[in-house]
This record gives sequence, C-alpha cells and structure tokens, in this order.
Amino acid sequence: MTRQFLGATLCAAACLTALPAAAQFQKPEDEIKYRKAAFTLMAAHFGRVGAMVQRRTPWDAQVAAANMAVVSAVHALPMSAFGAGTDKGDTRALPAVWSKAADFKAAGSKMSEAIGKLDAAVKTGNLDTVKAAFGPAANTCKDCHDNFRAK
Amino acid sequence: MTRQFLGATLCAAACLTALPAAAQFQKPEDEIKYRKAAFTLMAAHFGRVGAMVQRRTPWDAQVAAANMAVVSAVHALPMSAFGAGTDKGDTRALPAVWSKAADFKAAGSKMSEAIGKLDAAVKTGNLDTVKAAFGPAANTCKDCHDNFRAK
Repeated sequence: MTRQFLGATLCAAACLTALPAAAQFQKPEDEIKYRKAAFTLMAAHFGRVGAMVQRRTPWDAQVAAANMAVVSAVHALPMSAFGAGTDKGDTRALPAVWSKAADFKAAGSKMSEAIGKLDAAVKTGNLDTVKAAFGPAANTCKDCHDNFRAK
Repeated sequence: MTRQFLGATLCAAACLTALPAAAQFQKPEDEIKYRKAAFTLMAAHFGRVGAMVQRRTPWDAQVAAANMAVVSAVHALPMSAFGAGTDKGDTRALPAVWSKAADFKAAGSKMSEAIGKLDAAVKTGNLDTVKAAFGPAANTCKDCHDNFRAK
C-alpha cells in the first residue's frame, strides 16, 4: 500500500506541476466552465465510491477502482482554473479563493493527499480500508465548500 | 509503442466495461450535465495537445503526456451517459444518438481506438509521431459532432 500511495501521490504531484503552465483559457467563462466540469466529474465518481462505502450500492472493488481512477485524474485540474477575472460570472467561488490564496492552495493540497490515500485504499480491494480513507477525503471536499464556495 | 498502445487500449476497454454499470444518475439533467462535463474536459485537454501539434504552443512532451492522461481518463465517460430521457433538455445531442444507437456506439469505439493510438504516440515523446496520430483522432471528434450533435 505504501508504494501505491507513493505512486498516487507522485501522479497527483506530477499533474499539479505539469498542468497549470498549460492551463490557458481564451475567456474567463471558459475557465469557469472548465473547473466546474472537473468538479462535476469528481463529484459523480467520488459519489459512486461513497455509495459503496455507505452500502447504498454493493461493494465492487473493480468498479470502485474505475471510479477512483477518474477522481484521481481530474481532482487536481480545477486548481489551475481560478485565474484572474474568474471571480465573476457563473460561479459560486467566494472571494476568499483569491483573498486567501495560500489557504485555498493548502486546502487543494490537503484534498490531493486525501484523494491519493483513498485511491491507494481502493486499490487494496478491502472495503474496511476504503471506509477508513473515505471520511477524511470527504471532509476535505466539505472544508473547501464551507470556506470557498457560496451556499 | 505496441505495448503502450495495448495498455492504453486495455485501459480504455476496462473503463468502458467497468463504468457503465455504475453510471446511475438521479435525474436526466444530471446525466446531461455529466456527459457535457466530460466533453468539456476532453476538448480542453485534447485542444492543448492540438495547439502543440499545430505549433501554436511549444512542443513539450511532458505537458502533452499530462494532457493526454486526462483525455484518456475521461474520453469514454460520456458514452455511459446517453440514457433514456436524456434526449431533451440542455443538450445538443441529435435524435440519431438513440435512433442509430449502433452507429453511435461504433463511433464511440472508433474514437476510443484513435485516442488510445494518440496516447501511445504522445508517450513516445516524438512530435512527428504525435502529428501522425492527431489527425485521425480529431476526425473521430468531427465525425461524431457532424452526425450526432446539432450545430
């Protein structure tokens, strides 16, 4: 599990470092649409793992892994799409995203770390291991929503 | 390259087989929002590879690979989100998606195959190899837009 976690973390770190430089958008509304799209996919697939953790759907290690693969691939993308001029428009992002930029970035890193741990847990195929990692990951979603997103 | 292509193809096939069963949406509008989100991310990251192929941005093998990793992770997702009742609403999907379902599925498979080849090409790090694989992949986007999406 340690090696898997390291792999997931390195992957997340690589995505975080490799993508922002290329994250160029023609218009602020394109950037907002992009980050919302990433959150939509992340929420859908994270939610499907959550449904298994909460026993609303049967535990299936292969399906959980497929869902976590999507979460892992997209979770870091929104962080590259809160550029200048994207505080207005079709967005619920609060001014704190920009006024407390260091806190926002730290929240993103915390989320990435928790997602990496959950991904590693899912790869063990053991539901109890997944349950233990799911709560902390879900909490990082909630923390960010509470502090950086309008109700 | 053959092994990489095989890997990419197997991954795409695994995603295609593992995810639709879990693709449950509460409401048709959630399903439409989900597939549009996947297309939004795919277009953004495919477009960044295209910008390098067309020399609008400098070729960077690492950035191209990071972008293709996102494309590979999300390209198959929309195919699981054209369920019953999602022909109406905030969508440009044409009736042909459902009336010519076999053709639509075949177009999706063709796209997956082309994306797998492009992903393998990007992994070689060679721009000429990427250029050769980019056009066929882009054509599968266009084919589907021409036949299954309103202007």
